[in-house]
Amino acid sequence: MASAKPLVVVTCTAPVNIAVIKYWGKRDQELILPINSSLSVTLHQDQLKTTTTAAISKDFTEDRIWLNGQEEDVGQPRLQACLREIRRLARKRRSDGHEDPLPPSLSYKVHVASVNSFPTAAGLASSAAGYAGLAYALARVYGVESDLSEVARRGSGSACRSLYGGFVEWQMGERADGKDSVARQVAPESHWPELRVLVLVVSAERKLTGSTAGMQTSVETSALLRFRAEALVPARMAEMTRCIRERDFQAFGQLTMQDSNQFHATCLDTFPPISYLSDTSQRVMRLVHRFNAHHGRTKAAYTFDAGPNAVIFTLDDAVAEFVAAVRHSFPPEANGDQPVLPSSARFLKGLPVEPVPLSDALKAALDMDPTPGGIKYIIATQVGPGPQVLDDPGAHLLGPDGLPQPVA
Amino acid sequence: MASAKPLVVVTCTAPVNIAVIKYWGKRDQELILPINSSLSVTLHQDQLKTTTTAAISKDFTEDRIWLNGQEEDVGQPRLQACLREIRRLARKRRSDGHEDPLPPSLSYKVHVASVNSFPTAAGLASSAAGYAGLAYALARVYGVESDLSEVARRGSGSACRSLYGGFVEWQMGERADGKDSVARQVAPESHWPELRVLVLVVSAERKLTGSTAGMQTSVETSALLRFRAEALVPARMAEMTRCIRERDFQAFGQLTMQDSNQFHATCLDTFPPISYLSDTSQRVMRLVHRFNAHHGRTKAAYTFDAGPNAVIFTLDDAVAEFVAAVRHSFPPEANGDQPVLPSSARFLKGLPVEPVPLSDALKAALDMDPTPGGIKYIIATQVGPGPQVLDDPGAHLLGPDGLPQPVA
Repeated sequence: MASAKPLVVVTCTAPVNIAVIKYWGKRDQELILPINSSLSVTLHQDQLKTTTTAAISKDFTEDRIWLNGQEEDVGQPRLQACLREIRRLARKRRSDGHEDPLPPSLSYKVHVASVNSFPTAAGLASSAAGYAGLAYALARVYGVESDLSEVARRGSGSACRSLYGGFVEWQMGERADGKDSVARQVAPESHWPELRVLVLVVSAERKLTGSTAGMQTSVETSALLRFRAEALVPARMAEMTRCIRERDFQAFGQLTMQDSNQFHATCLDTFPPISYLSDTSQRVMRLVHRFNAHHGRTKAAYTFDAGPNAVIFTLDDAVAEFVAAVRHSFPPEANGDQPVLPSSARFLKGLPVEPVPLSDALKAALDMDPTPGGIKYIIATQVGPGPQVLDDPGAHLLGPDGLPQPVA
Repeated sequence: MASAKPLVVVTCTAPVNIAVIKYWGKRDQELILPINSSLSVTLHQDQLKTTTTAAISKDFTEDRIWLNGQEEDVGQPRLQACLREIRRLARKRRSDGHEDPLPPSLSYKVHVASVNSFPTAAGLASSAAGYAGLAYALARVYGVESDLSEVARRGSGSACRSLYGGFVEWQMGERADGKDSVARQVAPESHWPELRVLVLVVSAERKLTGSTAGMQTSVETSALLRFRAEALVPARMAEMTRCIRERDFQAFGQLTMQDSNQFHATCLDTFPPISYLSDTSQRVMRLVHRFNAHHGRTKAAYTFDAGPNAVIFTLDDAVAEFVAAVRHSFPPEANGDQPVLPSSARFLKGLPVEPVPLSDALKAALDMDPTPGGIKYIIATQVGPGPQVLDDPGAHLLGPDGLPQPVA
């Protein structure tokens, strides 16, 4: 069933990123321009990724999109903004004379399918990986090679940081049109090979304030947020960049924790207040501070986004002991601990972490009443690369007919 | 058993106060001078009070103090500062020529006994009532009639606000010696008779950071606290004073909640972070916001000090419905609800509140999964007067021998 003009189809993967200097608040809602710069770590796609296939064809009669197998409304404004922007860049490229040998027609409609490899319960910003993957895949099918910050940013602000691997800053920019509000790599994923990342997934029962609505309320009501954005973040960006360049874990960890706390402080200063940290989140914070106090230095650091799950940074020589401390303080529920179980049911997922005994001195220093089941599972990962094109045609999420492939 | 010189003995009561513009952070640790002004509501002593007896006698050989029946170390620095200050004021009074007919000798030692009428679990600042009562009783036995702000403040900063009834501001002052860091009444207790106060006592399992250590860490590490103190509090003091003068409950309630939230935001911005709000505290906050949203205006307002217990302000026409909403969201544990129980075991203590049914519309608007036992009990009270001298000689906590009276 060959069509007259075959599909142009590309499949790529895109990573999750976790901010260590937080983005919260827009100065322009339409263009998604932030009130401060931010800086993030790109997590490895071996553990957490979004896979996106984009296909264009003369035969398609409309743009369509499927997320995790469900068709979604392609008319939603953010998706439309991404599509408009990628087509604008493609036109610009042509008019600049960078004609490809076989330029795909800009009038072709596009079909997109995207799936997340990680559970929604992980509370990780799937929209960042999703829009980064969308921007990357669209760029490939439409032949765009320029900076994709704006395409991804128009979908979800922090998505622009998922366009690069390693350590990435999103420069807030100054221009009203947002052309200088772009993501740039601070250091590649190979820069700090000892760095490890643990995602601690906690049980979240309650509904959370969505980040889009939440940050807008914060901008309107929190004087502390405005002060933070204007007076504090610029110096923090410079200091965090230094910490990363010099691989100074002590300072990196402290500033990461301080910036997470300050972000949540501005949420609490919002009116009505926004609260993303649960009692379990607070217990994880105390665990980290006591762990560090016991060692006399910062060996672990937490950060929390718009949800109760903790993301922990450690170096490779501390990860096993920290995981043991988490197991001690949050004993896994029955059967969650046995390696014979399938990966999806295990307490510790991702990179292997050797079990180590916890010293009595550290147990005493933690001084925590155990909270069984407080943490559902841990995903162990590390710093990773940016979006990747998959060469294997078997990876496409859309079949030759441009529709989602039935699950094998 | 008459002694040659009889005892001079005075017994007084002093109130608890709850800040609506919060004090957090000292600019002088020794003199207890704050980094910002604060404003509080004095709670009625019919429900919550400290009773203090002070006695001086030629026969006493040393200063002694008993708190809740236990003798305490009179040498602790804050107690010593209060004693030094009251004796300095008494000497000053004499040298100014205000000689009493029978001036008690300044060389006499003092015995003090103090008891709280409210449970420690209420998490209310017993030190504020305690030091206000101490200052007031010492002033009476030593014949001091001048402003007692400094005496009380040297014991516990916020104690100076418990020296007056009604609505009280603690002016931060500018002088290095603290002479202008004094409490002043903004409006008397009769000013806003409709105002009601509910203390919601929640179960607190975990150890909390003490406020003295906590606020010092905040001053040292939180840039948001410094900004709040310098740039935001002055306007908030002026606005809160206006709200009170005009009995503008809408604005009073909103600013009270905003200032509580901002205080807790600066605690979270402290490093290591300080957290006083538990999940139950957060649930109370959501309850209040949903209650108000249902009514389309601010009919209840929360404030939290350095602990998880909520203090709620309402007007008399809303208190019954709000209490019903609390009962609905936090069902009292078995037997806590029966009026035949002694007062100490009842869910609702203090001022009577008529039970009223909760409308289905409000129940739906609250949208809360009930948390049985999350709130242990409620103390219903109102705005009250400042310290009072008790004329009844039977009220003295010290006997003719200057020692604590055995419990009758």
